[in-house]
Amino acid sequence: MGDKITKVSIIISKGSLEGIYPGLIMANGARAEGIEANLFFTFFGLDAIHAKRLEHIKVSTVGNPGMHMATLLGGLPGMSAIATHMMGRKMEQNDIPGIPEFMELLGDSGCGMHACKASVDLFGMEKNDFIPQVQDIITVGEFYDIAAGGEIIFT
Amino acid sequence: MGDKITKVSIIISKGSLEGIYPGLIMANGARAEGIEANLFFTFFGLDAIHAKRLEHIKVSTVGNPGMHMATLLGGLPGMSAIATHMMGRKMEQNDIPGIPEFMELLGDSGCGMHACKASVDLFGMEKNDFIPQVQDIITVGEFYDIAAGGEIIFT
Amino acid sequence: MGDKITKVSIIISKGSLEGIYPGLIMANGARAEGIEANLFFTFFGLDAIHAKRLEHIKVSTVGNPGMHMATLLGGLPGMSAIATHMMGRKMEQNDIPGIPEFMELLGDSGCGMHACKASVDLFGMEKNDFIPQVQDIITVGEFYDIAAGGEIIFT
Repeated sequence: MGDKITKVSIIISKGSLEGIYPGLIMANGARAEGIEANLFFTFFGLDAIHAKRLEHIKVSTVGNPGMHMATLLGGLPGMSAIATHMMGRKMEQNDIPGIPEFMELLGDSGCGMHACKASVDLFGMEKNDFIPQVQDIITVGEFYDIAAGGEIIFT
Repeated sequence: MGDKITKVSIIISKGSLEGIYPGLIMANGARAEGIEANLFFTFFGLDAIHAKRLEHIKVSTVGNPGMHMATLLGGLPGMSAIATHMMGRKMEQNDIPGIPEFMELLGDSGCGMHACKASVDLFGMEKNDFIPQVQDIITVGEFYDIAAGGEIIFT
Repeated sequence: MGDKITKVSIIISKGSLEGIYPGLIMANGARAEGIEANLFFTFFGLDAIHAKRLEHIKVSTVGNPGMHMATLLGGLPGMSAIATHMMGRKMEQNDIPGIPEFMELLGDSGCGMHACKASVDLFGMEKNDFIPQVQDIITVGEFYDIAAGGEIIFT
């Protein structure tokens, strides 16, 4: 029981701001402790590493009672942009970097970044679509090889 | 660190297409590598094994900025069906089976399938409601027994 | 492979009823088997331990095809309250406690409860905002220390 965690492999599968941040924060927290960290982007999580999309990721206001906004209001055009702006300001005030900066920070810290082959094929993407921090496109089986000996965290 | 993963136990708790697929793909990827795989269906994830529902599972268009549709548009009747149809076609083009076929494939590959007793009771279901690949209805404690010695992945 | 699980550390990151319950049920199932259980509340999951909010947590009706309600209907004011009420009654009938009672039960069973420092700072909360079962506010690194030797489950 006293053993330290030496590796975490974190799967990011969602494309909203609140779906992506927890995984980045957990990877960052791992690297800060000298723990090996790997990120595996799959399904809508691919947006977080898509060079043309990662700057435009939004908070999901509808279907999210935690936002404390009326659900119908959340469905109005522009509400998601406003919520995203508000959260962006709060994050800035708390020294939490935006997604593009966070990716650079994680890459510099030695965090591994991989895209899921099945999802990349499904969405018709290719290696060139991704930010340079992404090392490769790998299968689920290869992900298990990388994750062996550590914790898998699906976010 | 060099040890291989020998077992994954994957919990499926959501009832949307994009909530169910990642778990199925990770179970399939495990079996392809000779890794023991167990699926544990809980909460809305029970729809994935419900004989009368698994053919009607839809993409969740609202509250899902990753779909790249206006949120309000996502709330219009029929949009979820259209998104589901589009994703279904993309999956077919990429040789990803539909949920009913995927369940058969996984069952044939030796993947374990279990329903969560607390959720089954909550929704007033019973063993007969499920597809034949489901082996049993088990408690959370029994799930932990099955998962021991492997990775737990909550999707 | 035959080893028993001795510890689970469960991260609760969502603020809806269906986002919080699975983690509580998995923690409770662990304690019932004599397994050490720790809960780590982050992002919108903080609502589950917020003294003024935990009684008002709602089911998320939109963006949730598993609810079997028309998505547009789900967006009408009051639908979330109705769905919450319906689920609350079903839970009562199945002896599943409400969130405030569940927290007391878990605290009494010896389940650890921790709030994520980055999220607490982001939302401008403090220790006094939380129910007494919450022991402390910890960093991600401290969470990894607590979770070492067990399974991490992100819900």
